[in-house]
Amino acid sequence: MLVSEMSVKMHGFPHYTPLADALKIVLSNAERLESEVVPFDRAMGRVLAEDVISKVDVPPFDRSAVDGYSVRAADTFGASELKPVKLRVIGSVEIGVASKLRVGKGDAVKIMTGAPLPQGTDAVVMVEHTRAKDKNIAVFAPVTPGKNVSAMGEDVKAGDVVLRRGQLLRPQDVGMLASVGKIRVQVSRRPEVAILATGGELRRPGKRLGRAEITDINSYSLAAAVESCGGLSHRLGIVPDRSELLRRALRKASGHDMVIASGGSSVGEHDIMPDVIAGLGELLFHGIAIRPGGPTAFGIVKGKPVFALAGFPVASLVAFDMLVRPALRKMQSLPADRGYPRVRARLARKVSSTLGRADIVRVKVRAKGGELVADPIRVTGSSVLSSMTKADGFVIVPEDVEGLDEGSVVEVELYR
Amino acid sequence: MLVSEMSVKMHGFPHYTPLADALKIVLSNAERLESEVVPFDRAMGRVLAEDVISKVDVPPFDRSAVDGYSVRAADTFGASELKPVKLRVIGSVEIGVASKLRVGKGDAVKIMTGAPLPQGTDAVVMVEHTRAKDKNIAVFAPVTPGKNVSAMGEDVKAGDVVLRRGQLLRPQDVGMLASVGKIRVQVSRRPEVAILATGGELRRPGKRLGRAEITDINSYSLAAAVESCGGLSHRLGIVPDRSELLRRALRKASGHDMVIASGGSSVGEHDIMPDVIAGLGELLFHGIAIRPGGPTAFGIVKGKPVFALAGFPVASLVAFDMLVRPALRKMQSLPADRGYPRVRARLARKVSSTLGRADIVRVKVRAKGGELVADPIRVTGSSVLSSMTKADGFVIVPEDVEGLDEGSVVEVELYR
Repeated sequence: MLVSEMSVKMHGFPHYTPLADALKIVLSNAERLESEVVPFDRAMGRVLAEDVISKVDVPPFDRSAVDGYSVRAADTFGASELKPVKLRVIGSVEIGVASKLRVGKGDAVKIMTGAPLPQGTDAVVMVEHTRAKDKNIAVFAPVTPGKNVSAMGEDVKAGDVVLRRGQLLRPQDVGMLASVGKIRVQVSRRPEVAILATGGELRRPGKRLGRAEITDINSYSLAAAVESCGGLSHRLGIVPDRSELLRRALRKASGHDMVIASGGSSVGEHDIMPDVIAGLGELLFHGIAIRPGGPTAFGIVKGKPVFALAGFPVASLVAFDMLVRPALRKMQSLPADRGYPRVRARLARKVSSTLGRADIVRVKVRAKGGELVADPIRVTGSSVLSSMTKADGFVIVPEDVEGLDEGSVVEVELYR
Repeated sequence: MLVSEMSVKMHGFPHYTPLADALKIVLSNAERLESEVVPFDRAMGRVLAEDVISKVDVPPFDRSAVDGYSVRAADTFGASELKPVKLRVIGSVEIGVASKLRVGKGDAVKIMTGAPLPQGTDAVVMVEHTRAKDKNIAVFAPVTPGKNVSAMGEDVKAGDVVLRRGQLLRPQDVGMLASVGKIRVQVSRRPEVAILATGGELRRPGKRLGRAEITDINSYSLAAAVESCGGLSHRLGIVPDRSELLRRALRKASGHDMVIASGGSSVGEHDIMPDVIAGLGELLFHGIAIRPGGPTAFGIVKGKPVFALAGFPVASLVAFDMLVRPALRKMQSLPADRGYPRVRARLARKVSSTLGRADIVRVKVRAKGGELVADPIRVTGSSVLSSMTKADGFVIVPEDVEGLDEGSVVEVELYR
């Protein structure tokens, strides 16, 4: 590498932190947030912050699992199609009404699915296995005790841990909270994330651009990304890249649980965010060994994690996926990973990469002959947002390989 | 089948509609909803209802992709480490400022990443390939025209379709809307879904239960399920299973885009929902060939799709997944499928099933030796909600097989 040996760097990253190391630093500075109480019917998609222990049995009583006749199982022993057992129907039980019937030997009670078993009976004969005549039924098949009965506590017993701390609540889990009467529930607080767009050249979307001006994309895409992994985003607007203004904005932003700034994270003269972080707190790394997303800095200000992401839209979103998303998930007590669904796919063409740097390759995914095929999207730069809008997901080419061969099987993480 | 031949059905489904047929009927009665306009920064997770065509070029001007010197590429031809080319630095361009510099032969302009290229230059030499001395630089490597330049329109050209109708908007898509200045965007309206819990035995969660009373679970789990696939849920409360009350409730509920009732969908004496649907509109099927979820009815009232799902929590949620979820997705112009991520896994033990009926088997999924293993959850009944809260997903055993062998590779749809 004679060129680089001979060249003089006016700027340039003295050191690119490997992705794994950068992630370790980020995660060790992203604290799990405290919990808060929400009504159970607002808890879907939240992360449970307590083990939920039932105080009740579910179902709360023995009930019939079928339509038929509630019986003493022993009365049916020996019943067959040729030699049916005859039982006397002494009444019926309604759903929602506790029956006062006294059931004796040879008695049967008509019962609907879900109705409580009358005392004295221990099984239900399905209606299909009976024939009614006057006040009697003929039973054509025997039942064992407990047959066709949904027993008290069959689903949940008092004292059972029904849901565990750390799990994301899905519709069935909300149902379980209802079921055990847990109407107020501890969940992890959602991280409040301040978002700063830095750069005097930025204009709000929809504004007519003067010459040399560009539209602020990142504060909107990053806000959406924050929301997509459970955070609450607060766009604090556009800040020109002047130290005093950035310092003031960052000081204010650090009242939130996390700060994400985009722009000014590289090593040009206007890239002063890393210095601003260092001035107000501690800069923990600057420059990571990924592409896109290399110009990424991270530090701590007033105890809060602060990311300085690149100004280029793709670079900022890729760095978000690699570092911010796992941090936001950890803060909510979720696994500290990216949380994207993964599929295996065959690479449709060769991807080249550089040793010592992880490449995040955007791909389209399609089905072909019973397997999935990943088509890498040809891109020219980290400013090409359409490379991400056209993509279904991405493949990470690790630092220690020089590329991936056409036809190799890769793991694709799917955007959603 | 002598038993069933001999037996007399007081009740019983005369016909179980196969799942595929039931789904076809449901989907042919679930209309795509009209669109509505939302601000682009509220559009994440919504379904685009228009093709978005850019009116602008992105980037709006040629800009530098690196820190370095903007040059006329031809001036650098022949440059090498041993024979560098000397250029005169006539100034610098700032980000956000349109340069007025006149660049002639042999001139270079200092430039930062993202700054607009001064007129007359057509390439950028990376700072690493130069050495500065006084007002001159030595260039150690040649560049071709366009090198290190992010060209006007490189990402998006005016007239490009940047996002397509029917796609779910992700963070990068929100960024693209910002980028092209599309600040108000047409998205599919979210379906408004009325939810009725039927049954006089039901009590609200957290209420103390009298004898034979049970807790209303379904209206909460179904509301969460509606929200989980983009719908807006409206719980209209508990309705005792009396025809007149159900008719009144259903008439009111059918002012929404869809009605989901749980309970009263089977063939017992209290299972009057199908009759109520038929009385107010048209009942299109009653009873489907799946387990759990068989006691499911569907019809149309005042032009709106109405589902009568089973009262058992698991049965109602499974039928929701099989029929309601695809309908809600279609109404939002998404693919009319369940939309769950899918993985392949090896079945840890045999699953038996019944010919002619699709079984929805809840499974836990774990990694083992580089592959995924699906453990079927042992269940006793469709009232056992814990079989779903413990599950990571489900496997469908189709109607035409009698079960799945241990060790077979199955497709698991993952709850999320």
